[in-house]
Amino acid sequence: MIYLDNAASTPVDEKVIEEMLPYFREQFGNPSSIHRHGRIANTAIQNARKRIAELINANSNEILLTSGGTESNNTVIYGIASQSKGKHIITSSIEHDAILEPCRLLEKKGYRISFLPVDKYGFVNPEDLKKEISDDTCLITIMYANNEVGTIQPIKEIARIARESNIFFHTDAVQAVGKTPVDVKELGIDLLSISSHKINGPKGVGALYIRNGVKISPLMLGGGQENGLRSGTENVASIVGFGMACKLAKDNINHNTTHFKKLTTRLISRVLSEIPLTTLNGHTDTRIPNNTHFTFLGVSGEDLIIKLDENKISASTGSACSVKIQKASHVLKAMGFSHEQVTGSLRLTVGITNTEQEIDETVDVLKKVVQELRSVSPYKSKYNF
Amino acid sequence: MIYLDNAASTPVDEKVIEEMLPYFREQFGNPSSIHRHGRIANTAIQNARKRIAELINANSNEILLTSGGTESNNTVIYGIASQSKGKHIITSSIEHDAILEPCRLLEKKGYRISFLPVDKYGFVNPEDLKKEISDDTCLITIMYANNEVGTIQPIKEIARIARESNIFFHTDAVQAVGKTPVDVKELGIDLLSISSHKINGPKGVGALYIRNGVKISPLMLGGGQENGLRSGTENVASIVGFGMACKLAKDNINHNTTHFKKLTTRLISRVLSEIPLTTLNGHTDTRIPNNTHFTFLGVSGEDLIIKLDENKISASTGSACSVKIQKASHVLKAMGFSHEQVTGSLRLTVGITNTEQEIDETVDVLKKVVQELRSVSPYKSKYNF
Repeated sequence: MIYLDNAASTPVDEKVIEEMLPYFREQFGNPSSIHRHGRIANTAIQNARKRIAELINANSNEILLTSGGTESNNTVIYGIASQSKGKHIITSSIEHDAILEPCRLLEKKGYRISFLPVDKYGFVNPEDLKKEISDDTCLITIMYANNEVGTIQPIKEIARIARESNIFFHTDAVQAVGKTPVDVKELGIDLLSISSHKINGPKGVGALYIRNGVKISPLMLGGGQENGLRSGTENVASIVGFGMACKLAKDNINHNTTHFKKLTTRLISRVLSEIPLTTLNGHTDTRIPNNTHFTFLGVSGEDLIIKLDENKISASTGSACSVKIQKASHVLKAMGFSHEQVTGSLRLTVGITNTEQEIDETVDVLKKVVQELRSVSPYKSKYNF
Repeated sequence: MIYLDNAASTPVDEKVIEEMLPYFREQFGNPSSIHRHGRIANTAIQNARKRIAELINANSNEILLTSGGTESNNTVIYGIASQSKGKHIITSSIEHDAILEPCRLLEKKGYRISFLPVDKYGFVNPEDLKKEISDDTCLITIMYANNEVGTIQPIKEIARIARESNIFFHTDAVQAVGKTPVDVKELGIDLLSISSHKINGPKGVGALYIRNGVKISPLMLGGGQENGLRSGTENVASIVGFGMACKLAKDNINHNTTHFKKLTTRLISRVLSEIPLTTLNGHTDTRIPNNTHFTFLGVSGEDLIIKLDENKISASTGSACSVKIQKASHVLKAMGFSHEQVTGSLRLTVGITNTEQEIDETVDVLKKVVQELRSVSPYKSKYNF
């Protein structure tokens, strides 16, 4: 089995599992309990929080623990909106659904949402952002790196524009953290979402960085955990695992990014040179190093991943979160892709466990199956396959 | 170490850990992915969902997977309110904060909330419920068993009253499931909250039973997982563990309840006969079998748990979720307890790993520390300790 869908999820690192296990067994206390079992669990959470903070150069008390990226994103949209007088939010047209859908719900409730366009590489233009800002704008939320094509936005510039206008800036950095160094202070970010299972931690846990001074309302109420900002018994073992995943991501960032870059460079170079009528989508350089995203003209991406799956290779057409309903990628459409270009797309994302040999095997299989599919393609005569 | 705070959290069963581990390692796929890794993860979730459903006699498609009891409860309050024309909710004054706090927020937004009183045992009177029902009532939510004193409500009767008035009935059964047989069909329940970590499953996962036909809005939006009712990548390993915990709870319900009953009967009998000026709170019979809750007159419960902790016994004054802020129990106040009675309370809750010997050791320590504390109590002369 070759797994090239690391943008969808990643295997949990053995060191992370090792770190988690005691918190299922002997250290199973409820962190809110004042007895020994509770205090041990509470200390474990605080240590993990520190590790999560360190990965993005935040303070520990700026890290809100959540059930994952989706909860972090929903908390931002609803939590900032309900604290603000302004009823206007600026986002982009290529955000993850965990941003777009809450925005659309607010739109139904009378908020105004600006969905910024992107260019053919998937970049937001900071000039477009400036034009949309109004006295009523309460939040700007632009993703750090796109989950489909990997394009990295000009985050520092966007953050600067937001700050100059006294508007909170959030970035969904679920796909960026661990793949490129992220420093919230240097970038001037107010809010940032992270997910554990995208960086070899367990699923079901994530964080929201909330800069000290930013006021936000909780999504869930109850026992008042996380300083009242996120009620519910803390997911101790998973939080501890997430903490370890962050520590590993920080310690190994140079090694990992070099590894990712080596694999994707080889993958891109071989695919483009050995499979005709193929393009790399997104930007050549300004992309997260573990992402590749291609269009194979005349081929259906759906058919392609089924064929790859038959050859024991796991790949994706785009976001895992929307493949089941098989809707055409809103990201590629926003980038101006034709229906045919959208249809023929394939995302291959590498991780820490992938090898150069796996990349070579994948290209060999890909060449074969693209050829097979093109031989029966309705576009056969158009391209003279 | 003797752990007698199983109402706060429980150790994860080894069989549950065993079941979870493969889903951290080789089966780490995102359940939304259509390749093999994704399909395996998706199948695992569906199998777990079936096990969760079976524990409460529900259908698999009536189980919504959440991040825990708090999320389940919040989903019900906000999700039913936003679907309904009616702006009145009936609950009780002894609910968990994960019910009370969302209700109070809705109250601020113009909803009317009736907080039903309880008697000295903690029972809601169904006649009081009937009187509160109006044309505007959209939800009745009454907990199954109280988390502090263990009192089991007349759920079947309450459900019948709700159904006769065509009002949705929800019960927070976090403390009841696994401790007493719960059959949603036989009881006529519309919505029911469960938590994994209260029944020897992992933290960070829970479920909401939603009877087929009940319309509810999601708390979080995004990728559209869980039929659009709960977005976010599914917490596969934890869900699988929760499923196993439910299977074990179902398979062993008779053995476990007998074990709990044996331990608590011994504990109650020895405490009441060997420590003077002590009462058992809640009802003698109509309580979950793993719960004991005492008042030791002239003693501070806080001091008591610290002393017990020094003797390596983990206990609680009440809900773990509120001990840190040390507010007086709203449950005991609603039951008509005096300040002194509230202050002197201690909750000891047994679990599957506790032994008779641990109970005996605990009573021996308890006798000693109660005596010590009473010898320096400000109430010393009042009671002639």
